[in-house]
Amino acid sequence: MGKIKVAVFGCGAIAQRRHIPEYADNANVELVAFADPILERAQEMAATYGGTSYASYEELLKNEKVDAVSVCTPNYLHAPMAIAAANAGAHVLVEKPMATTAEEGEQMIEAAKRNGVFLMVGHNQRLMPPHVKAKELLDSGLLGKVLTFRTSFGHPGPEAWSVDGRESWFFRKEEAIMGAMGDLGVHKSDFIRYLLSDEVAEVAGFIGTIDKKDTDVDDNATCIVRMKSGAIGTLVASWTQYKGGDNSTVLWCEKGVMKIGTVEGDEVIIELTDGTSETFKVGAMATNEKQVPSGVIDAFVESIITNTPPTISGEEGLLSLKVILAAFESQATGSIVKL
Amino acid sequence: MGKIKVAVFGCGAIAQRRHIPEYADNANVELVAFADPILERAQEMAATYGGTSYASYEELLKNEKVDAVSVCTPNYLHAPMAIAAANAGAHVLVEKPMATTAEEGEQMIEAAKRNGVFLMVGHNQRLMPPHVKAKELLDSGLLGKVLTFRTSFGHPGPEAWSVDGRESWFFRKEEAIMGAMGDLGVHKSDFIRYLLSDEVAEVAGFIGTIDKKDTDVDDNATCIVRMKSGAIGTLVASWTQYKGGDNSTVLWCEKGVMKIGTVEGDEVIIELTDGTSETFKVGAMATNEKQVPSGVIDAFVESIITNTPPTISGEEGLLSLKVILAAFESQATGSIVKL
Amino acid sequence: MGKIKVAVFGCGAIAQRRHIPEYADNANVELVAFADPILERAQEMAATYGGTSYASYEELLKNEKVDAVSVCTPNYLHAPMAIAAANAGAHVLVEKPMATTAEEGEQMIEAAKRNGVFLMVGHNQRLMPPHVKAKELLDSGLLGKVLTFRTSFGHPGPEAWSVDGRESWFFRKEEAIMGAMGDLGVHKSDFIRYLLSDEVAEVAGFIGTIDKKDTDVDDNATCIVRMKSGAIGTLVASWTQYKGGDNSTVLWCEKGVMKIGTVEGDEVIIELTDGTSETFKVGAMATNEKQVPSGVIDAFVESIITNTPPTISGEEGLLSLKVILAAFESQATGSIVKL
Amino acid sequence: MGKIKVAVFGCGAIAQRRHIPEYADNANVELVAFADPILERAQEMAATYGGTSYASYEELLKNEKVDAVSVCTPNYLHAPMAIAAANAGAHVLVEKPMATTAEEGEQMIEAAKRNGVFLMVGHNQRLMPPHVKAKELLDSGLLGKVLTFRTSFGHPGPEAWSVDGRESWFFRKEEAIMGAMGDLGVHKSDFIRYLLSDEVAEVAGFIGTIDKKDTDVDDNATCIVRMKSGAIGTLVASWTQYKGGDNSTVLWCEKGVMKIGTVEGDEVIIELTDGTSETFKVGAMATNEKQVPSGVIDAFVESIITNTPPTISGEEGLLSLKVILAAFESQATGSIVKL
Amino acid sequence: MGKIKVAVFGCGAIAQRRHIPEYADNANVELVAFADPILERAQEMAATYGGTSYASYEELLKNEKVDAVSVCTPNYLHAPMAIAAANAGAHVLVEKPMATTAEEGEQMIEAAKRNGVFLMVGHNQRLMPPHVKAKELLDSGLLGKVLTFRTSFGHPGPEAWSVDGRESWFFRKEEAIMGAMGDLGVHKSDFIRYLLSDEVAEVAGFIGTIDKKDTDVDDNATCIVRMKSGAIGTLVASWTQYKGGDNSTVLWCEKGVMKIGTVEGDEVIIELTDGTSETFKVGAMATNEKQVPSGVIDAFVESIITNTPPTISGEEGLLSLKVILAAFESQATGSIVKL
Amino acid sequence: MGKIKVAVFGCGAIAQRRHIPEYADNANVELVAFADPILERAQEMAATYGGTSYASYEELLKNEKVDAVSVCTPNYLHAPMAIAAANAGAHVLVEKPMATTAEEGEQMIEAAKRNGVFLMVGHNQRLMPPHVKAKELLDSGLLGKVLTFRTSFGHPGPEAWSVDGRESWFFRKEEAIMGAMGDLGVHKSDFIRYLLSDEVAEVAGFIGTIDKKDTDVDDNATCIVRMKSGAIGTLVASWTQYKGGDNSTVLWCEKGVMKIGTVEGDEVIIELTDGTSETFKVGAMATNEKQVPSGVIDAFVESIITNTPPTISGEEGLLSLKVILAAFESQATGSIVKL
Repeated sequence: MGKIKVAVFGCGAIAQRRHIPEYADNANVELVAFADPILERAQEMAATYGGTSYASYEELLKNEKVDAVSVCTPNYLHAPMAIAAANAGAHVLVEKPMATTAEEGEQMIEAAKRNGVFLMVGHNQRLMPPHVKAKELLDSGLLGKVLTFRTSFGHPGPEAWSVDGRESWFFRKEEAIMGAMGDLGVHKSDFIRYLLSDEVAEVAGFIGTIDKKDTDVDDNATCIVRMKSGAIGTLVASWTQYKGGDNSTVLWCEKGVMKIGTVEGDEVIIELTDGTSETFKVGAMATNEKQVPSGVIDAFVESIITNTPPTISGEEGLLSLKVILAAFESQATGSIVKL
Repeated sequence: MGKIKVAVFGCGAIAQRRHIPEYADNANVELVAFADPILERAQEMAATYGGTSYASYEELLKNEKVDAVSVCTPNYLHAPMAIAAANAGAHVLVEKPMATTAEEGEQMIEAAKRNGVFLMVGHNQRLMPPHVKAKELLDSGLLGKVLTFRTSFGHPGPEAWSVDGRESWFFRKEEAIMGAMGDLGVHKSDFIRYLLSDEVAEVAGFIGTIDKKDTDVDDNATCIVRMKSGAIGTLVASWTQYKGGDNSTVLWCEKGVMKIGTVEGDEVIIELTDGTSETFKVGAMATNEKQVPSGVIDAFVESIITNTPPTISGEEGLLSLKVILAAFESQATGSIVKL
Repeated sequence: MGKIKVAVFGCGAIAQRRHIPEYADNANVELVAFADPILERAQEMAATYGGTSYASYEELLKNEKVDAVSVCTPNYLHAPMAIAAANAGAHVLVEKPMATTAEEGEQMIEAAKRNGVFLMVGHNQRLMPPHVKAKELLDSGLLGKVLTFRTSFGHPGPEAWSVDGRESWFFRKEEAIMGAMGDLGVHKSDFIRYLLSDEVAEVAGFIGTIDKKDTDVDDNATCIVRMKSGAIGTLVASWTQYKGGDNSTVLWCEKGVMKIGTVEGDEVIIELTDGTSETFKVGAMATNEKQVPSGVIDAFVESIITNTPPTISGEEGLLSLKVILAAFESQATGSIVKL
Repeated sequence: MGKIKVAVFGCGAIAQRRHIPEYADNANVELVAFADPILERAQEMAATYGGTSYASYEELLKNEKVDAVSVCTPNYLHAPMAIAAANAGAHVLVEKPMATTAEEGEQMIEAAKRNGVFLMVGHNQRLMPPHVKAKELLDSGLLGKVLTFRTSFGHPGPEAWSVDGRESWFFRKEEAIMGAMGDLGVHKSDFIRYLLSDEVAEVAGFIGTIDKKDTDVDDNATCIVRMKSGAIGTLVASWTQYKGGDNSTVLWCEKGVMKIGTVEGDEVIIELTDGTSETFKVGAMATNEKQVPSGVIDAFVESIITNTPPTISGEEGLLSLKVILAAFESQATGSIVKL
Repeated sequence: MGKIKVAVFGCGAIAQRRHIPEYADNANVELVAFADPILERAQEMAATYGGTSYASYEELLKNEKVDAVSVCTPNYLHAPMAIAAANAGAHVLVEKPMATTAEEGEQMIEAAKRNGVFLMVGHNQRLMPPHVKAKELLDSGLLGKVLTFRTSFGHPGPEAWSVDGRESWFFRKEEAIMGAMGDLGVHKSDFIRYLLSDEVAEVAGFIGTIDKKDTDVDDNATCIVRMKSGAIGTLVASWTQYKGGDNSTVLWCEKGVMKIGTVEGDEVIIELTDGTSETFKVGAMATNEKQVPSGVIDAFVESIITNTPPTISGEEGLLSLKVILAAFESQATGSIVKL
Repeated sequence: MGKIKVAVFGCGAIAQRRHIPEYADNANVELVAFADPILERAQEMAATYGGTSYASYEELLKNEKVDAVSVCTPNYLHAPMAIAAANAGAHVLVEKPMATTAEEGEQMIEAAKRNGVFLMVGHNQRLMPPHVKAKELLDSGLLGKVLTFRTSFGHPGPEAWSVDGRESWFFRKEEAIMGAMGDLGVHKSDFIRYLLSDEVAEVAGFIGTIDKKDTDVDDNATCIVRMKSGAIGTLVASWTQYKGGDNSTVLWCEKGVMKIGTVEGDEVIIELTDGTSETFKVGAMATNEKQVPSGVIDAFVESIITNTPPTISGEEGLLSLKVILAAFESQATGSIVKL
């Protein structure tokens, strides 16, 4: 088998900082084409990494025969682009949130199935070393059953991350549809489902624009979730943690507590009711300031090469998406929403 | 003015460990009578601190002329006892939660008013040095407006605290009415209202018995609250933090973050967006294991001596109670409850 | 089944500080008799813990029907006492070194077998929490194969430990036969065999009396050992580490290093070649100054109750003994000794 | 006196990283010629530091009049090159191990004596600030007599150090003769002799190729040594400490312990039996990753300028070499070897 | 209003490292001219920052119309240059000490007044974040009245700071007039006056050249000062703190102690008699090695723009100068000098 | 020689906490008599330690034949008592300050000489382990010449130390003559003389009653001293360091700095200009809260037993006294005082 020919749709921050360099570092991949409505961005990528550039992804699909596509565009384009790519016979890696409605998500899954291609969602949190270690420890049974938890993801907002700064699509509701919740909250709904091997049963949320000016996307979400197992917890996403932001999770369990990302340098800490404790230094989680390889691209490529369906599948992405959609519904209706 | 004659209703843990010794240490107070249905407990207190003992508080009120009463009994007795004491012309200090329904709370306030006595609620969290310092710092404006927050209070449950251990009234629903929420949650609803000088506008909660056996009182509550100012946050009360429990609050504000009770020994920490930080070592918060004077008794006595209405008044206690009652209502009805 | 009737032979330090109190704390045991040539010592134990006292263990065995015996006497008595006890039908727990020659050890094993009783050796190092955790981690495969190691046990000598101080039998060669090597070295030969699940193939040793005055027992031993697997390491026992003594083991493995007992408070540390590290705070190892329950007595009683042969069997004790006997032979003959 | 004309034989790692730059930094030296069978290496050095380049050291000696020579070649060339240089009237600084047999060593000493030149061996460990301080402290008598010790030098092997990586002569037995023992072990035999001002009386060693593939040079050596003073200790050299490697020495003495290189940043620590302790931060020891000037070149030049025989003489180098040769003999013969 | 046209007199260390770059960073300023008797220095500045260069400041004033001047020359030139600049209608920022006699200082103030320009002195210590915070805390009353204090400023001398090294004017008495006292002591007399909002009433000093060779300027001064409020303290300036130098101040007050600059990273620490403490990390103070913006230039520019007299006025500078002149008088006369 | 018969004059704090228990612990001493005008105090000591009790020291000297006397009374009694004891043929250990005038001091020396007895002064600072170590290090020459220094001794005042609290003679000028200066300042004048092996040449001081109420003894003294060697420094004694008090000394020397008592737990720290540093943990200095044996009594007894004049002689005590008397003169006259 030759190299996998990959096209990237959207050449903004996530494409420039993670997808494209990680494809470039993968010996099994050839980057063949880039699409971005701001053609200069696509050209710049092509100049650096090889391949051709397009202002339109439809043109790209028409002209190039690609094996796989990364969708790195504003949220509202995830579904149509992923479906178009699948219809063109390409495996699809789509950034999170995979879609902006459950219907879109189902159509994406359907399109992939119909075309015999893989659909993977960029939920990189599952692959971060502290999260991998936490999952391994929890699954070992050391801590017993999870009773309650809190998980949160907060930073000062995407102004410093996006290549467009304050002018980013992140702040335009018609393109982003969701703000902090789509950027960060869906990471945590995915992670908590994955970590607990459990599904969310009920959710309530307060979501709104508390501090950001001239935008109507949410900059904060505080939610409570009840899992099918009965465990309850809080889930927070914030773009206004101007100091004190983090990506942390704490699980209070029958036999002790697990703290993930609460102490710099001690990424996973377990304190047991028998008085012992264990600390795991497994490498920091990526932050906007400190990029580490996400592992997502390598996992996607591995799936294709080995013809193994991706673990972080469209179905998984959809379940995680539904949690945050339910939180939005809770905010809108004033009721607790069952899933 | 002579010494204030004080009677104590209920001689369990909170009376033995805080009320009675703090009255005994206050030079303006004379402990004159103790009531407890388990007469031996009252007798033991009388033997140690002087005064007479009763198995019935009604008998006590009939026989003794007291200036003030502390109500330290199971929750369901707070209201009737406080009203009886007020009707007997005594100032009343009632433990939290002040009552089990809003109606009871209003009747207590009414009884105090009618009899010209003070009604104070034992919300000692307001007087803990870290909380006093946090309030002072927040009021200074250094941090700007509070945007989001989390506040939680968790420990392994009252088994080790109560003089009756696992057989305590804390686990009997007909006497306790509420569990972790009445024990710990109402502390945090009171504290967050006080700290932010703000009122709760909406609340949703998941409350239940997740791990404790043979009881139907709640051992956990996770809530989201929206303040009238627009700030949103989470409020957690737990009796199943077998490790990793704490009494902490974090406020993310316009100009930085304030962390209260998150680092042992550094009780209040401020990190500002200008890159500076401030740390205040003001003494630990009381825990079940490490008792420090609550300050509540001294404040109550000071109110009486100076004839100044207590700051932690019945009205305040009622507003804090209503928050947790609303959370119970949210759990019961599946809707977000407005106050 | 009623309580196990236990007799203790020898009422010196190890009996007073570990065996007797741990039997007393075990609900399945009844201490019925104590023997010590210094009768007062036996009487004192009987006065405190109940039971009768004897100056002669033969008398004891003649007069008492016991289910089990602990042999806590000077080394030269281990074998005759253990055999006598076995012959009297009692299970035997003998302190380390189990014997002073291999022949004695074999006779003890034989006597136990013949009488249908268990023979266990007091190699408590296997039960210390840091060692238990180290074994579990090594067995997990995380570190790959062990390549080299060092293990050492050193302190300032038994003067402060023995109830007889400098006059202790520890310093009389005819009773102790061995010094630091029998006191500490055999612990480490047993532990390294156990930890690596491997047997010693070759050993060389320099053993001698380097600093202690008026004694000809060894106060120091430095050995090199080669395991059947090919791993090589050093094994040190010392009674002259007047400062800087410890009970530590370091394993250099294919995928990283494991450090046991090298950092106070961080009992087991793993550093992996992938750059991650793990720290386990599992409780300190017992030292002469800081006694913690050895776990040996509970394990012995559990064996008897469940009729399960003890893990730390006579056979195991004999293999560990042979290592140090080989080291003595190396010192005596000037050659490297194969086992 | 004009500048000392220096030639360097062998332009690999040790020449490039220490000898040549340290000569270049010494105002009394002129680098005049470089020899290396890979001529490009010699040319590169000449281009950078001036002087001429040769593929053959014999040619160099024939064509150039040099005052001094550094021998930085594979071990098997140390003796012939040093003798040739001495015969050419040049002072000789030879890397360790000075030779591969005692006979070679004696011939080198003889050649130097015959030609009236100095012979110095590159035992830089004596000059490292922590070792200088340790020697000064031990000589002060503060610690009393040394009783036991351990000294070890370990790292992941020369793959990352040598300019030829895994293809280095270090792994070819016919050129290296010895592996970890010649690379690291001889450093520690020299250092312990120097530090204790004592000679090794007996040695036993397990030496072998435990983990490195496709090589038959030793990658590990664990030895025991008995000094003439009676002190005993362990001496370890390892190329397979993939993590947890160090260059440390611990001395247990009559009045306390001295720890050298055991705590990062606290290079020398003394803990005394009187309860006091002293810590000396004197600068880190050089590692393969962190080069610091060895001091060896300056000392060699100083010897020549002041016409003072070097302290780290050929005789010293030979005594240190004999220790490791004895360890190899112990491995080969299965006996403890007396020196 | 257009940009402020600024000229700089003297292009040595303080001009190159603070004045000129800080002017260049200030959007309201245009650097128009530089004067230095070593014309190359002025030319180099002009080349880098724009503007013209002069060897003579008189020529500069004759040829350029400037709004403001920074005087960054040796001490003996401060007065004549500042007066000339004021007479030319320019606002003046003069480095400390503002003058070398009180008379000069008064003439400078008079000249500024007469010409309607501002005179500011470069006492940057008032603007350093730790000092700003200390002032704010002390003014809050938290600590009560200051009773005693010590303030000191020491480093190894100006050799490493001055662009001329050991040949600097700092060591030539006819140009410097004062040494450590004028360089560092006047900073502390200014700071202590400012911090305590108090004036010095009496001073005694030992001032001399203790260690510097070939110079007769003072390299050390140790003084005692009594404030008008009654507080007493020590004031030290040193150029011979070859290690252990700092810029620290400790105030012992009625209710606790304030430590400024005593612990690296914890710039201001308050310890109160009630047992609490507060730590403020507000950013390090500038040292010769670690330059941070002084804030002086911005404050000077702000004064001009807003037409507000500078806080660190000529009058303030004169009062601070008089303290150190009194110390010199004390040294000269052997008496305690009253101000 | 039999036991030395010792009498103690004055049974207050220093006698009860140091002199008497240290005599009692010295095997060569018999405590035979105690004198105190408050007879109960003397009786209490006699009851505890044996011996007889007197209200008058003259009576004691008349009735008892003693070999040695400790004078532990208010300052104004030191001279008459010491002289009386010497005249009675007893060796004398007198607390500091040895006297209240130089004349008294000379008479005491004369009386001792005339009677052939030893006169020792209780300057215990010389014997504190950190000070012993500091002296040893300074004398080694490691740091070169001392250039400048600061030494200070401060605490919250003798209220908590004296057995009479606020009513102590320490606050009555007619008995104490001096306050903080006599209590603490003379310790530091003695220590700095001893440490530097140098004499004070000039001194100036601000001494006064800054905060203590209802007393006219000095509660603070800040002095500058110039040594005969040319070194200059500050010397501070304070009774108003309510927080932040210490007993510390810093010496800035030619080759580095020595810090004594500046970091808790690291009693002596040396930082050298060559970048190295050394830390000595030699045991804490005694404070009022934490008493450690002073060593003074043992040294005094040793002098008597070995018939060796005490190092801390009357002559030494007088020189140290003269320094503080000069500081008082400086305060009184407004001039710098030469010694």
